[in-house]
Amino acid sequence: MTVRIGVIGTGMIGQDHIRRLTHVITGTRVTAVFDIDTARAEEVADTVGARALATGREVIDAPDVDAVVVTSWGPTHAEHVLGAIAAGKPVFCEKPLATEAEDCLEIIEAETAHGSRLVQVGFMRRYDAGYREMKKVIESGAIGVPLMVHCAHRNATVPASYTSAMAAQDTAVHEIDVLRWLLDDEIRSVQVVTPRRTGKRHAHLQDPQIMLFETAEGVRIDLEVFVNCQYGYDIQCETVGEDGLVRLPDPAAVSVRTAGRASTGILQDWQGRFENAFDTEFREWAESVANGAEPTGPSAWDGYAATVITGALVQALESGGIVRVDALEKRPAFYGGDTR
Amino acid sequence: MTVRIGVIGTGMIGQDHIRRLTHVITGTRVTAVFDIDTARAEEVADTVGARALATGREVIDAPDVDAVVVTSWGPTHAEHVLGAIAAGKPVFCEKPLATEAEDCLEIIEAETAHGSRLVQVGFMRRYDAGYREMKKVIESGAIGVPLMVHCAHRNATVPASYTSAMAAQDTAVHEIDVLRWLLDDEIRSVQVVTPRRTGKRHAHLQDPQIMLFETAEGVRIDLEVFVNCQYGYDIQCETVGEDGLVRLPDPAAVSVRTAGRASTGILQDWQGRFENAFDTEFREWAESVANGAEPTGPSAWDGYAATVITGALVQALESGGIVRVDALEKRPAFYGGDTR
Amino acid sequence: MTVRIGVIGTGMIGQDHIRRLTHVITGTRVTAVFDIDTARAEEVADTVGARALATGREVIDAPDVDAVVVTSWGPTHAEHVLGAIAAGKPVFCEKPLATEAEDCLEIIEAETAHGSRLVQVGFMRRYDAGYREMKKVIESGAIGVPLMVHCAHRNATVPASYTSAMAAQDTAVHEIDVLRWLLDDEIRSVQVVTPRRTGKRHAHLQDPQIMLFETAEGVRIDLEVFVNCQYGYDIQCETVGEDGLVRLPDPAAVSVRTAGRASTGILQDWQGRFENAFDTEFREWAESVANGAEPTGPSAWDGYAATVITGALVQALESGGIVRVDALEKRPAFYGGDTR
Amino acid sequence: MTVRIGVIGTGMIGQDHIRRLTHVITGTRVTAVFDIDTARAEEVADTVGARALATGREVIDAPDVDAVVVTSWGPTHAEHVLGAIAAGKPVFCEKPLATEAEDCLEIIEAETAHGSRLVQVGFMRRYDAGYREMKKVIESGAIGVPLMVHCAHRNATVPASYTSAMAAQDTAVHEIDVLRWLLDDEIRSVQVVTPRRTGKRHAHLQDPQIMLFETAEGVRIDLEVFVNCQYGYDIQCETVGEDGLVRLPDPAAVSVRTAGRASTGILQDWQGRFENAFDTEFREWAESVANGAEPTGPSAWDGYAATVITGALVQALESGGIVRVDALEKRPAFYGGDTR
Repeated sequence: MTVRIGVIGTGMIGQDHIRRLTHVITGTRVTAVFDIDTARAEEVADTVGARALATGREVIDAPDVDAVVVTSWGPTHAEHVLGAIAAGKPVFCEKPLATEAEDCLEIIEAETAHGSRLVQVGFMRRYDAGYREMKKVIESGAIGVPLMVHCAHRNATVPASYTSAMAAQDTAVHEIDVLRWLLDDEIRSVQVVTPRRTGKRHAHLQDPQIMLFETAEGVRIDLEVFVNCQYGYDIQCETVGEDGLVRLPDPAAVSVRTAGRASTGILQDWQGRFENAFDTEFREWAESVANGAEPTGPSAWDGYAATVITGALVQALESGGIVRVDALEKRPAFYGGDTR
Repeated sequence: MTVRIGVIGTGMIGQDHIRRLTHVITGTRVTAVFDIDTARAEEVADTVGARALATGREVIDAPDVDAVVVTSWGPTHAEHVLGAIAAGKPVFCEKPLATEAEDCLEIIEAETAHGSRLVQVGFMRRYDAGYREMKKVIESGAIGVPLMVHCAHRNATVPASYTSAMAAQDTAVHEIDVLRWLLDDEIRSVQVVTPRRTGKRHAHLQDPQIMLFETAEGVRIDLEVFVNCQYGYDIQCETVGEDGLVRLPDPAAVSVRTAGRASTGILQDWQGRFENAFDTEFREWAESVANGAEPTGPSAWDGYAATVITGALVQALESGGIVRVDALEKRPAFYGGDTR
Repeated sequence: MTVRIGVIGTGMIGQDHIRRLTHVITGTRVTAVFDIDTARAEEVADTVGARALATGREVIDAPDVDAVVVTSWGPTHAEHVLGAIAAGKPVFCEKPLATEAEDCLEIIEAETAHGSRLVQVGFMRRYDAGYREMKKVIESGAIGVPLMVHCAHRNATVPASYTSAMAAQDTAVHEIDVLRWLLDDEIRSVQVVTPRRTGKRHAHLQDPQIMLFETAEGVRIDLEVFVNCQYGYDIQCETVGEDGLVRLPDPAAVSVRTAGRASTGILQDWQGRFENAFDTEFREWAESVANGAEPTGPSAWDGYAATVITGALVQALESGGIVRVDALEKRPAFYGGDTR
Repeated sequence: MTVRIGVIGTGMIGQDHIRRLTHVITGTRVTAVFDIDTARAEEVADTVGARALATGREVIDAPDVDAVVVTSWGPTHAEHVLGAIAAGKPVFCEKPLATEAEDCLEIIEAETAHGSRLVQVGFMRRYDAGYREMKKVIESGAIGVPLMVHCAHRNATVPASYTSAMAAQDTAVHEIDVLRWLLDDEIRSVQVVTPRRTGKRHAHLQDPQIMLFETAEGVRIDLEVFVNCQYGYDIQCETVGEDGLVRLPDPAAVSVRTAGRASTGILQDWQGRFENAFDTEFREWAESVANGAEPTGPSAWDGYAATVITGALVQALESGGIVRVDALEKRPAFYGGDTR
């Protein structure tokens, strides 16, 4: 049985997911789309034999739509997710779940009232083979109780439109989700340390930033976010426990020896780095929809946590101090089975 | 448009390809199957909504079969491939194309008479990301003209039914194909060197073996085949050129530091190692069928070459001497565009 | 011409240096020693044909002593170093130069009054091949202006006598010196973050600790000190600059593939890790003495800086806040040529 | 007590050993030298306070010479080694022990008649930390009984004077010695395979060459000798046993990430690669001399074996066939304790 999917938002990421749902994932078909740019919506719809509808609501309510993918502009996410919950349809929402914590809470309330999980948030790192293997090692007890995590998130460059706050909201948000999941723990406070800025940046931007986190269990995380590192797209993660450590691998690549150096290539963009993770993410999500099961990926609570924590980071960057994250202390029982 | 596929042979590898064509590759569907074990054929057919037919011929001729996959017992391959050519249908044949060189030649003649390529042989390594990257490096000229290749093909263990000749026929055959393709060159002679046998083998088996190849261009290849190496499934390949070398990567895996050692896991079987290569292989083949294009993968000539060269290896193992491979000197123009 | 050396302090480290000066370094000879444990002093003296004298002062003043090595108990260092300066003799003092900043300043004043450098402090990392290569890379401009450094200093275990303050005084002190030298920069503030404690420690000990430094140029350094990491002695250092990064190598070690894992050994103690660095340190120091030249290694100012910064770390560990290091802002011209 | 050494041959390697014996190794002093270039001998002697004598014989017989180092032109080695044996003095002879097997046998007879070992041959790889660690792993049984060894010996370039035979005599000779020692086994046959020649060579030279060895125990060794590989000096060795494998490490070097590549430097010459091995070699030899003990390094028999095997390689290169090495089957009891 084919899962029929409606996609709200046909920008770059929307188009990529439509391609994925059409050509990579078996058992899924995009039947309806919406975008505020009507012409673009129709163009995209045509390439896959879908209809372009007049509103997100029409996509959600269409009888030939079994599940919804939300990839529109961030501030509109909440509206569409709430619409899907109201319609009782599974919804995959790209990060952020909502740009405001209050909207996330409204989604949580609506989903809780619905009585079963409908929402999955698009944090794809949980589907990356390396992170999954790291989680297995941690859960096996091989490195003992986790005490520290050292991370780096580096991009070669970012456009001028990238702001200092986006280091938290758009970049660190991926580590925030994957670390909460890796450690099965919650973040309790954040701090942002600001190194000398790279001269190879746009003038307004604090780059790099070092973000420090403390979890409920006392694990300390340091995360270097450096989005103009020049040399490539490079994701590093090392978890140190009582008995040892586990480190995320670099992507496999041929090694070359020429002219006095042994070298391997470094990826230049995230698409190559997380392509397989995106595929697995949608494959597993589509399976849960096809089986009428609750999604097993990042929940609305995880989406709320990410928004709260990135908000605290932005505040910490401005204040220079430590910002506590109290809002996440009481996780509702409804979401308890997912990560804790 | 969905490509409808008939599968001849529903053993382990046949079932895996049926799973792949049904659940992994988009745009393909298995509609008919045949196996000499009728019960098994029906059982497998049921799982994917296909029909089990009475003969391979019926599968080939079925009107709802656009293309054929042959995964039956090796000695029956030729019959089914010839049948598909006669029916003018694209056929994907697992290695070997045929167990006898004469049968390969008959297929070549039939395909040549047909006038366009219909046959693709199942050598999946050409679709492995590492080998593809290695080929790009070689073709870029970065390491200069290739002079030598050092390879190893190691399995943790093999069953008692594995014979010394199978080291060539079942194991080295993959390196033979991928090296001819990597180097865009032809093998001209072979030799087999026999090290002290591992004590951890079945008594009849010469294991390990070191196979030596010389190509038309004078490249020298050494290939260690060691199928009871105990520690894991391990594929190594290093191409040395006039200016440098390029080495196949080990699969990416988390590294762990515990108890005085830094370590990474080694795969235990080929499924994990070449899973993505199999998927890409079928995805690209299915696309060529869907587009009505000739396949771009290993040709009948490549299948013939593999059978001739593995035959020479078996002869060299018995004789202890160097065996020339003369049959491949004149590649027909029909196959000229493929690898040379 | 042989350099005749007097050694004050014949404990474990003193004995190791005596062995080094006798059997490893050419051109040096130990002629006189002192230790408050007279019996030990005599025993050690006998093994190398030296005399055991009654006081450190006698060692310093002995006519057959060209230069002095101080490896006694930390709190006695200042007295002996001042004595050597008064005698106008070169003195190599194991870290710390003095346990109190005031004593370091007194040494600085005495040396400045003397008019040329006589003091070298025993920070051996500057002589490690890996750190030296890293410094060359940084100075070459290959990674651009340094922005961040990520470090880890891990010991398998420490004895019960090890205190939380020693994480700064005995352990981090090595990174402090080598980072000031690597970056040719000064530390301006410190902070200590306290992760969940390992259960595999003595009850009184905060282990691990994460130390954060900011330099005058705005470089941010994070240093994990984890002295009961169980798995081995492991020193990591990565400097990130505007254009790239450079990482200290792990010590070379054979790699082994057995039982499903590819692994290399990790050292268990610092002796193996820095043996060559110690040898080079003494070889270069002995050469400077033989040539009547000023020493080129860590100066009294570097020793003072280390004492001030480790003091600030201990204060930061207690307070939980950021501690500024103002004392190092004005480096005397006399020491200006050494690191800035 | 200082060991007083006479050095015969003050060319480049002789000068390097004189520097080592004077400035690096403690407890040794060069007192007399000889070279057929009298002016050079005197100049070198002056730098270390030694005398330049008129003949090698005079050096050997000088009363202030306790032990002799022979680093003269290869064809003269035998004469000086025999002279030292006649004088009953320990002699360290750079490889080859003698260029002719007969001369090696004469040395063996003389030393056997003397009744205790006096001769050590200069194969420094046995003193390299990596090879030593590899030998420990093999002897520990961790990889099981050795079955195969894969080696590569690559130089960036060689001068025009380098001949095809020197690939065996000057280059492979190091692997021959270290492999006999690593495996505690003897070579029984050799074969040389000739790949396409690199275009970046002098016209007369067969480069690269692949040398194949079979040992008495049936171990098969393949050794790539490629002396114009352009990219650097690169020594590789991998021993494969019944249960696993062990691989020589690359020299430790900082890794750098810049401009899309992660890379480490490759050494350009053997001096850097084996500097520490040379030092250890002489340190251990000097200790044996100082202690009046027999040397524990490569023996006259090992020197004979190297000459016999390199001779067989040259013959195999010319003939293209397999050349048996029968001369080494009966190792005299006198040499039995050393490697078997």
